[in-house]
Amino acid sequence: MSITWYWEDLQPGLVRELGSITPSAEDIVEFAQQFDPQPFHVDELAGKRSIYGGLCASGWHTCAMAMRLTVLNFLNESSSMGSPGLESLRWLKPVYPGDTLTLSYTIVESRPLRKRADVGLVRGRWEMSNQNGEKVMQMEGFGMFGRRHAATAEELARIDAERSAS
Amino acid sequence: MSITWYWEDLQPGLVRELGSITPSAEDIVEFAQQFDPQPFHVDELAGKRSIYGGLCASGWHTCAMAMRLTVLNFLNESSSMGSPGLESLRWLKPVYPGDTLTLSYTIVESRPLRKRADVGLVRGRWEMSNQNGEKVMQMEGFGMFGRRHAATAEELARIDAERSAS
Repeated sequence: MSITWYWEDLQPGLVRELGSITPSAEDIVEFAQQFDPQPFHVDELAGKRSIYGGLCASGWHTCAMAMRLTVLNFLNESSSMGSPGLESLRWLKPVYPGDTLTLSYTIVESRPLRKRADVGLVRGRWEMSNQNGEKVMQMEGFGMFGRRHAATAEELARIDAERSAS
Repeated sequence: MSITWYWEDLQPGLVRELGSITPSAEDIVEFAQQFDPQPFHVDELAGKRSIYGGLCASGWHTCAMAMRLTVLNFLNESSSMGSPGLESLRWLKPVYPGDTLTLSYTIVESRPLRKRADVGLVRGRWEMSNQNGEKVMQMEGFGMFGRRHAATAEELARIDAERSAS
């Protein structure tokens, strides 16, 4: 896969639409049985009796689905090097089976990394909405990205070193 | 399952040890293929070439494993009603296949919910460490819990209403 998004390309204000995903009841229960087996995430009747009024997805499942869209529609075409964490995360509305969740990503801040000249840091905001236009999840967090000319700079340094040695 | 932890029992300073989990390479790749297919989470060689020096777990997988321990060893014995979100989340060290991750949970703050007399809010801190005592993940977030006497109060109100009506 070729890289089209380096740190330099990720300027504050940039918005990327990252597509949609529609979890089924089976998807919701399967994730929750493994990672968040609270009654309202694994059982329809318990969901109905809860404050959510029906079976609903684990918040971690919602985040994982957002990450899937982020990787497939953005990070895999970028110089992404992972993330040190999040500043905030809000689960605003329940996610129900059959909801179509649409994700948008906005760059909020960008700065070079002090420790490494070849890496830059980006702060971004993810917003996920359902088919009724209700925001179900919002988070702000950091991503590390390789800089455009890092490889070239490394290459040049290596060539210089080899020249000096010969 | 009977409830032993109501909101009233979750006072600031309370620490709960929530057990351990050891993800295999298969677990790490399976989660990442579905939710975070970045090269260093799905491919050993790509992991070796990355800043992480080896295949490592998606941060969302680490959170999901923490949630599993939290539900099985605490929330399923509580009056948990879900969470509105997190204040912060830090992925501090990579999680590698075979790492044994141990989770601890500390109550930081507790307050009644303004909107609902039968629910209280708790702010807690999760800390997850590997077998070398290195902290790999820390997060702080909120949980909603039913109050101990809520059911009784509701019951009494209903009985009163029925009495007045008859």
